[in-house]
Amino acid sequence: MPESRPIAILGGTGPAGTGLALRWARAGEAIIIGSRDSQRAQEAADKIKQKAGNQANISGMENSAACAAADLLVLTVPFEGQATLLKQVKPAIRPGSILIDATVALAAGVGGRASRTLGIWQGSSAQQAAELVPKGVSVAAAFHNLSAELLNGAEALDCDVIVCSDDPEAAKLTRSLASKIPGIRAIDGGKLENARTLEQITALLIGLNIRHKGHAGIRITGLPPEAYR
Amino acid sequence: MPESRPIAILGGTGPAGTGLALRWARAGEAIIIGSRDSQRAQEAADKIKQKAGNQANISGMENSAACAAADLLVLTVPFEGQATLLKQVKPAIRPGSILIDATVALAAGVGGRASRTLGIWQGSSAQQAAELVPKGVSVAAAFHNLSAELLNGAEALDCDVIVCSDDPEAAKLTRSLASKIPGIRAIDGGKLENARTLEQITALLIGLNIRHKGHAGIRITGLPPEAYR
Repeated sequence: MPESRPIAILGGTGPAGTGLALRWARAGEAIIIGSRDSQRAQEAADKIKQKAGNQANISGMENSAACAAADLLVLTVPFEGQATLLKQVKPAIRPGSILIDATVALAAGVGGRASRTLGIWQGSSAQQAAELVPKGVSVAAAFHNLSAELLNGAEALDCDVIVCSDDPEAAKLTRSLASKIPGIRAIDGGKLENARTLEQITALLIGLNIRHKGHAGIRITGLPPEAYR
Repeated sequence: MPESRPIAILGGTGPAGTGLALRWARAGEAIIIGSRDSQRAQEAADKIKQKAGNQANISGMENSAACAAADLLVLTVPFEGQATLLKQVKPAIRPGSILIDATVALAAGVGGRASRTLGIWQGSSAQQAAELVPKGVSVAAAFHNLSAELLNGAEALDCDVIVCSDDPEAAKLTRSLASKIPGIRAIDGGKLENARTLEQITALLIGLNIRHKGHAGIRITGLPPEAYR
């Protein structure tokens, strides 16, 4: 993947978005932070640049402009904002784009607990996203189970990223992006429908964090070495 | 926990049951294998004893007799047999017993895929079990995500066991049983309702095993040392 193919992180001013941006910028990727407000996007981009170093290639744009400028899109908004954002940016999404969805439908989004999830008619937030993107745009589900606090730090992570997608090329590209984050091993998790379990795991880990005061992640054990790439 | 408090593994002649029995027998626990057929239960017990060594304390009984002889019950049957078995043994379950449920409602049980689960009205198989046991019997959910093949082997496992229960004492006892299996760390996963995610994870791991030809398990990273016990 050439450096010239930028990654747009939609709704990327929150902690998960800035954390992924920081890690990918450090790995030499070109990053566009998307936000409803272009000014806010630029401010977030500047902050990440200060942490990542001056050679980092990070800009900020309004979400639709970010979609028009990139064909690798990452969605890190809370679930309650996912459908609205996707409907809004849909006309700007370029044909052949890949959307990497990290959304989790936490009950906290509707006044419930962050350790519980909502039932999604399509099965998962990622499957809802797949319904909302233009035809010919592939969706991959990944990055649900990384601690935003650890992502925004400097140390290697101690986590695996399971990637689910119905498009093998989108899955492969998403795994390669995951592998650029120090400490992370990427695992092919099969079809997009399996995202439902990835999303549930986030709520479980949030519960563990509340109970045990940590930054929980998961590692998958017992697979042959070639499964981790 | 004194050795004299036996563990009855109901429907324990399958690979998950015999694997847990083997590991606990090696740790000095007294084990009763329960089965619909007492003859079959005794044969399974004899086989495990051959692997565990002659000092191992393992017997076999019909399921209701096993319930009457123990107050630590472990359920390792396929989901489609769970309700029938619990209704059948209910009169034999002693007041104050603890039932550890490891059931996962795989779609394979109704002709679907082992990498998918069924929706359970109560939320999870463990919550269905809680509805079916006599009043005063506590249910804990655990041991869903251990490879039966690895359990039946000799090596230490590379997995964590998350334990969910509404009864802190039942949870503590279940964690102590988990910790007796070499390599396993036990983690308090909170209330029984969180079993839904533990059960989903099994289907995800089965999918990974099919895809990558392994014996997948999970480790939880990022929690403070006192969370693992």
